[in-house]
Amino acid sequence: MSQQDNPSVLPEAPQDEPATVESLSVNAVIEALHEERLEDLKAPLLAAPPAGLARLVESLPPTERAQLWELLDAESAAEVLPYLHDDARTSIFEEMEDSELLATTEWMEAQEVVDVIDDLSDERGQILIDSLEADNRARVESLLAFEEGTAGRHLTSSHLSIRADVQVDVALRWLRLRSGVAEDLDCLWVVDPEGRLIGRAPLAVLVAANSSALLSEVMDADPPSILGSATDHEIVAHFEQYLQPSTAVVDEQGLLVGSIEMAEAIGLLREEADHSLLKSAGLDEDADLFAPVLPSARRRGVWLGINLLTVLLAAWMIGRFQAALDEIVALAVLMPIVASMGGIAGSQTLTLAIRGLALDQIQSKNIRWLTGKEFGVALLNGSFWALVIGGITWLWFRSGPLAAVIAAATLVNVISAVLAGVIVPFALKRLKIDPALSGAVILTTVSDVVGFTAFLGLATYFLL
Amino acid sequence: MSQQDNPSVLPEAPQDEPATVESLSVNAVIEALHEERLEDLKAPLLAAPPAGLARLVESLPPTERAQLWELLDAESAAEVLPYLHDDARTSIFEEMEDSELLATTEWMEAQEVVDVIDDLSDERGQILIDSLEADNRARVESLLAFEEGTAGRHLTSSHLSIRADVQVDVALRWLRLRSGVAEDLDCLWVVDPEGRLIGRAPLAVLVAANSSALLSEVMDADPPSILGSATDHEIVAHFEQYLQPSTAVVDEQGLLVGSIEMAEAIGLLREEADHSLLKSAGLDEDADLFAPVLPSARRRGVWLGINLLTVLLAAWMIGRFQAALDEIVALAVLMPIVASMGGIAGSQTLTLAIRGLALDQIQSKNIRWLTGKEFGVALLNGSFWALVIGGITWLWFRSGPLAAVIAAATLVNVISAVLAGVIVPFALKRLKIDPALSGAVILTTVSDVVGFTAFLGLATYFLL
Repeated sequence: MSQQDNPSVLPEAPQDEPATVESLSVNAVIEALHEERLEDLKAPLLAAPPAGLARLVESLPPTERAQLWELLDAESAAEVLPYLHDDARTSIFEEMEDSELLATTEWMEAQEVVDVIDDLSDERGQILIDSLEADNRARVESLLAFEEGTAGRHLTSSHLSIRADVQVDVALRWLRLRSGVAEDLDCLWVVDPEGRLIGRAPLAVLVAANSSALLSEVMDADPPSILGSATDHEIVAHFEQYLQPSTAVVDEQGLLVGSIEMAEAIGLLREEADHSLLKSAGLDEDADLFAPVLPSARRRGVWLGINLLTVLLAAWMIGRFQAALDEIVALAVLMPIVASMGGIAGSQTLTLAIRGLALDQIQSKNIRWLTGKEFGVALLNGSFWALVIGGITWLWFRSGPLAAVIAAATLVNVISAVLAGVIVPFALKRLKIDPALSGAVILTTVSDVVGFTAFLGLATYFLL
Repeated sequence: MSQQDNPSVLPEAPQDEPATVESLSVNAVIEALHEERLEDLKAPLLAAPPAGLARLVESLPPTERAQLWELLDAESAAEVLPYLHDDARTSIFEEMEDSELLATTEWMEAQEVVDVIDDLSDERGQILIDSLEADNRARVESLLAFEEGTAGRHLTSSHLSIRADVQVDVALRWLRLRSGVAEDLDCLWVVDPEGRLIGRAPLAVLVAANSSALLSEVMDADPPSILGSATDHEIVAHFEQYLQPSTAVVDEQGLLVGSIEMAEAIGLLREEADHSLLKSAGLDEDADLFAPVLPSARRRGVWLGINLLTVLLAAWMIGRFQAALDEIVALAVLMPIVASMGGIAGSQTLTLAIRGLALDQIQSKNIRWLTGKEFGVALLNGSFWALVIGGITWLWFRSGPLAAVIAAATLVNVISAVLAGVIVPFALKRLKIDPALSGAVILTTVSDVVGFTAFLGLATYFLL
């Protein structure tokens, strides 16, 4: 096998070389669609892994996306759907007849059907549930009993549990006789007679163990587990700590409910990362990069409106110092500098604080040390750059008092923005408001208002 | 087993209830350290998973961090070190004697030793290499032959390869007789006589297969693989696509070099996410939240200096319109609004574009569609909010021409900032400059300079 036709090179195909369809890069696929080489595309599409295909689908503008979707059979479509973000998926559902949708769900696992139902209208979701066969429906309804965004929704259908008093060779024979053991099953979960989780028996251990040993002798006792009600964030944190291929999910009584695979955690971690990154710009992590203009504009417009309110507040503060601005035109020239330095210093602290909170690193016992440290950083950097800005102002406008005023205002603003950068997200989290969403707006407001007020206020007092 | 003493509750212990040391939350640990209940801490620390312990260590201020580190024995320290970020690790190395360092490395796998060497001075690294036993040293040196940040550096030491013409029962017996099979081994890699990768045989498949079948009959043929020279980014993309518990690493000739586990990809994905999030604020993803004041201030100060240059440029542009500002003081009051609306609209686009580039979703064939779409969004939102801002200005200053000027300037700035938001990161990536780092600075410069110039320029032309 040469590396050339290895599917692993998919995401990194060179951007401007003549694209072969084999590489399935976004460029190659768009080119093939434009040239209507549809037959060339079919084979590589059907061979591609579903998660990769989902990302490809999300990288296509609406026309090309619809063309590509047409090429997928019901089975491929069923495999890809669970990996799409909500928005992209919804846009595809809108194009599908109910009968097509039902055809795809026949290929899905219960957990994937549930994912799909979450994105459908209640009515359409019910049609789908009603169409399922009895035991599949029972499984889907048991998953739906868990709230969206909790561990119960991410259970694999392939976990296997076994009693502790079974011999290793019996367990292996049991596995051999069972049909439909998942290819990537990594362990058996060991339970007591009541069904409570008491151990984990990795396949590698079973294979290597003495065949007459009991599972209770070879298992890892008391393996880490999570509750069915654990949030997506807790699932990610759990996998990042324990780094096991799968983790057991239990109920409040310790009864084994199922298990979650690390592959699921990879997806959740990506979602969490997207959330942190996109929320700070008022964007939704499920938003579709290639959505049409109108829905994109509507969503983002709201954020512009919120920003307008905060900048109007800043403008109103400036308006209160019209006398000073009227007298000394240099104030208008220099005032963005003060606001901007505070904004940058504050957003550095804010970014670190939001990440620290997301990773549960910042808690009530270390927030004071952290605030003290950030204050120190702000004092040092604020003083240094205040002197630089004062110097530049003196060189530019040859006014000692003006230089002193801008230096003092810069220092004040850097310190207050940095303190806001650590305190605001912590307070927001306490109030159960998402700091990734609101932190940046509040911080900008603080750095603008304090910056303009300090600079123009000091100028009014000392220079008029 | 009750959920109470399940280690999985670690990261989510309630913040303000009386902390038990069993929970190992940041709060509980700091409290125990302050009350000098060191013996209470030891047992839970030694039982905690290394990656979780590493995050705990990084959540402690310097004094508490040093206290905690003292409590770990060489084995625990060795397990934790590979999971620490560079900065935190370096700060710990500085405190360690060479002899202590050598003691910890005795507990590490070769891959982990290599991680540690990367963080040491050349001299200290060489001392460490020289101290290793011969076969361990050979392994470390073979890993060091790969460049930092490539797949070759992340190889597990536990991969096993086998020939395709072996029977399943022979393979299983071979595994049973082998000592030291890794507990979480998920598959055997099947190679041809030259050592080229030709298949993957998951343990679950081997266990369930007919014992007289040949591996060539039960294996997945031509499994996805990556090159030893693949970057961390490519590794993450690969795991996100294929979602397999481990992936084979091959050289240019297709020869099996080793394998990487999904657990490693989880860490790399977190790093990639941190990079996207932190770079935009000019922060390093390896920076230590609880680093002392001086190094933190030095690192962040540079970013403030860069920002100062961009805002000085904006101030200089404003300075060119002093005549207008002198005449109409309302211009100074209103001008931040224009710059800010452009900045927000542009940073939304920029954030989406940086993420799309990071996920390889944006390529040359769809950038045009995307630019067109973003232009449409900017036109719609820009027009709507320009009218709103014009209306507010008219109500505030009762000047129709001023309202018309600010509305026009807002529209111009929103459109140009949004176009910059999609074109700048794409261009930076082409130039091999990290868009996550430089994109935001350039965008702010564009929205400030265009915003001030458009507003004050139009005002000079039409209102004076």
